[in-house]
Amino acid sequence: MRPLTVALILCFSAFSFAQTQSSNGVDYHHIAEQIVRHALSEGRAFDMLRELTGVGPRLSGSPQAAAAVELTRQIMERWSFENVRLQPVMVPHWVRGPVEEAAIINSPLVGTMPLTICALGGSVATPALGVVAEVIEVKNFEELHALGKKAAGKIIFFNRPMDPTSLDTFASYGNAVDQRGSGAIEAARAGGVAALVRSMTTALDDVPHTGGMHYDDQVPKVPAAAISTLDANYLSQAIAKDQHLTVRLKLTCATLPEATSANVMGELPGTEKSEEIIVLGGHVDSWDKGVGAHDDGSGCVQALEAVRLLKTLDLKPRRTIRAVMFMNEENGSRGGKEYARAAAEKKIQHIAAMESDRGGFAPRGFSIEGDSVVAQKIAAWSPIFAAFGAERIGRGGSGSDISPLVQQGVLGLGLIPEPQRYFDYHHSDNDTLDKVNSRELELGAAAMALMAYMLAQEL
Amino acid sequence: MRPLTVALILCFSAFSFAQTQSSNGVDYHHIAEQIVRHALSEGRAFDMLRELTGVGPRLSGSPQAAAAVELTRQIMERWSFENVRLQPVMVPHWVRGPVEEAAIINSPLVGTMPLTICALGGSVATPALGVVAEVIEVKNFEELHALGKKAAGKIIFFNRPMDPTSLDTFASYGNAVDQRGSGAIEAARAGGVAALVRSMTTALDDVPHTGGMHYDDQVPKVPAAAISTLDANYLSQAIAKDQHLTVRLKLTCATLPEATSANVMGELPGTEKSEEIIVLGGHVDSWDKGVGAHDDGSGCVQALEAVRLLKTLDLKPRRTIRAVMFMNEENGSRGGKEYARAAAEKKIQHIAAMESDRGGFAPRGFSIEGDSVVAQKIAAWSPIFAAFGAERIGRGGSGSDISPLVQQGVLGLGLIPEPQRYFDYHHSDNDTLDKVNSRELELGAAAMALMAYMLAQEL
Repeated sequence: MRPLTVALILCFSAFSFAQTQSSNGVDYHHIAEQIVRHALSEGRAFDMLRELTGVGPRLSGSPQAAAAVELTRQIMERWSFENVRLQPVMVPHWVRGPVEEAAIINSPLVGTMPLTICALGGSVATPALGVVAEVIEVKNFEELHALGKKAAGKIIFFNRPMDPTSLDTFASYGNAVDQRGSGAIEAARAGGVAALVRSMTTALDDVPHTGGMHYDDQVPKVPAAAISTLDANYLSQAIAKDQHLTVRLKLTCATLPEATSANVMGELPGTEKSEEIIVLGGHVDSWDKGVGAHDDGSGCVQALEAVRLLKTLDLKPRRTIRAVMFMNEENGSRGGKEYARAAAEKKIQHIAAMESDRGGFAPRGFSIEGDSVVAQKIAAWSPIFAAFGAERIGRGGSGSDISPLVQQGVLGLGLIPEPQRYFDYHHSDNDTLDKVNSRELELGAAAMALMAYMLAQEL
Repeated sequence: MRPLTVALILCFSAFSFAQTQSSNGVDYHHIAEQIVRHALSEGRAFDMLRELTGVGPRLSGSPQAAAAVELTRQIMERWSFENVRLQPVMVPHWVRGPVEEAAIINSPLVGTMPLTICALGGSVATPALGVVAEVIEVKNFEELHALGKKAAGKIIFFNRPMDPTSLDTFASYGNAVDQRGSGAIEAARAGGVAALVRSMTTALDDVPHTGGMHYDDQVPKVPAAAISTLDANYLSQAIAKDQHLTVRLKLTCATLPEATSANVMGELPGTEKSEEIIVLGGHVDSWDKGVGAHDDGSGCVQALEAVRLLKTLDLKPRRTIRAVMFMNEENGSRGGKEYARAAAEKKIQHIAAMESDRGGFAPRGFSIEGDSVVAQKIAAWSPIFAAFGAERIGRGGSGSDISPLVQQGVLGLGLIPEPQRYFDYHHSDNDTLDKVNSRELELGAAAMALMAYMLAQEL
């Protein structure tokens, strides 16, 4: 997920709901009620999510990711989607390694204490016996730069928490995640031997939250790991007691040759303008911690269920609605890039693309990026989406997988669910099926179904 | 909780946020931001909830209920509330009994199968060896009445699920809960020997959800139990295989003599009109299943935290803001009734009463009952409450504990959180602290703090 900000842009009144009809007399309020009723009584998103998370963690290049491609293809076939097919994509193949990861404090003042850590996705391994070095704590890159030569030979400990005070947890994530994404580069640039990064989470917990990180060919590749927020606090206190404490960091991860994988897609063909496409997507890969129930199993099954709902309720769109299970959002975005590249090459006309990648929580609205007049038009549909509790429709980023399409000028939409819990689970062992409420998940799918239908009919 | 329905009544625009000032120039938008920032970084509601749920289940008359009275009194003293005091209330004292409750199917066709049940609160016990009878399934009282003499001697199995299709789970609860509340009366009236009631929950799970029920002195008191939704489905299928299967139902509950207990209250005194009261409340009692984390530990700590937030941020209300921990909402509402009776007797001027008793989930708004013009005025504050995600302000019921005050003409408000998960946990072993997200809980407290302050300043 990328950090996004959403601003409300419109006014709504429940009293106007009953009058919400299109120019040609279609009563979308009635259709919304029909979809909600079906989704909450006979919705299949949660069942699909049980299947998908049953595959296990689905990191790009893994056997589980391959199994998820096959499973989502089967689900599309099972519900008689049309033009079901795979779009081949080459993906990075990073593995955590067979040996347990570890970080251990060694200090005459503090003692010997293990820390709860995990490699960041894409990190190089440490030597077999680990990296042993003093630890120096910084809150940001400016502090690191100010250290000058003091950083040389040290493990750089990036310990700036996500800002808890913002209602928008995605904004807080966006303002903290540079430590994870570029911490290894900045650590190496400063002469450091490794990066240890406070987990990107609003929770104070004892699990590390992994995630993507980058290297720069201009500087050495140093190993990088996430540390749980509880142990980040502990380590900070320990450093206050002994500024010369050392940590032994041991990671056994590796980057293997790239692997073949695929986006999965299937359609509900349009009745009038079948060559015009509305894309609905989520990403089928996940990190290797937890089973990607919220990130982004939920988004995948919501896109699948949205198409199934329209088919089941016999709502025939004028334009083609296509569900796409994007591969490799987490560590490369290869699926999203390949999809957009191929679409441009073949000159396929995309009218809009919508993504769900903020968790399977109760929907609150949609964010839109693209032409202002079109965005205003969609925002005016807000009263209809109150039927799903999703009436906050405003400007904001859409989604990572569809951003290459959006850069080509395609209208982008993101489903915006309630955001307070998402980063408790994100990229960690806690992102499991039991954290998803079936009603909340189905409501999101229902909201996406109507939005896709209205985009197909009304744009 | 009582079933309530809420209708949105107003229009909002984020663009107007910055201009939201009172007639005397106070910038409530700024105050809202101040409260949110403090609540999300240094809020204490979750810590208080950990303490309160640590007491255990708090059924009226129990030692744990007494401990909760003392604990909430201490919390008020700890944060220097003024006029901290107890208001004595006599409460019912029902106990589940020391021996395990049981219901066992016996059938030559189906076999011997235990069912997951628990006594409904207030039920009489069965004889020591249990009630053994054939079971007859009905969906509602009309079906029961239509059975005529066929119901005589039977265990009446009320098996109408909560309607899953409504977005408003409280409305669905309201439409199903007659089975639990009056099932024993109707069963007895029909000649039945016991009532077995499908648990009031949106979840399909293996835990029974207890709750209040009534007797009528005109008919025999027959034992009544809740059955888990999974086992309700199982029993229904078993009856389809063997219409003459019997169930042995054994309950060991008892009603003891009434006990003395108390409402707990403490204040932030008004600077100008200290004799005019704004009440903020939740109920400190719970059922004896789970630890009442959402129902209604959350509401109690939100009321406490709202007052603490105002004190800590040095926001001095013109009118007195009083936190009240009501006793005995679950099986008698004695606390709410006594509070209102004493207020009328002493002619204490109550301007408004606000309750949180719909769980500690992310706040979405407030419901208001009372004078239309005043309700419209409060609804116009909606843009300010978007700072908490709580901008849906509309007409609807307020809360069970404050309803006796509302009946006296006092304006009533209810905090409305996201409602999809509440009945998964309600009145069951699943209503525990781990189901509450600290950020969501603190946001609700923050929204109540500002609402109380604005009621104190602006009405």
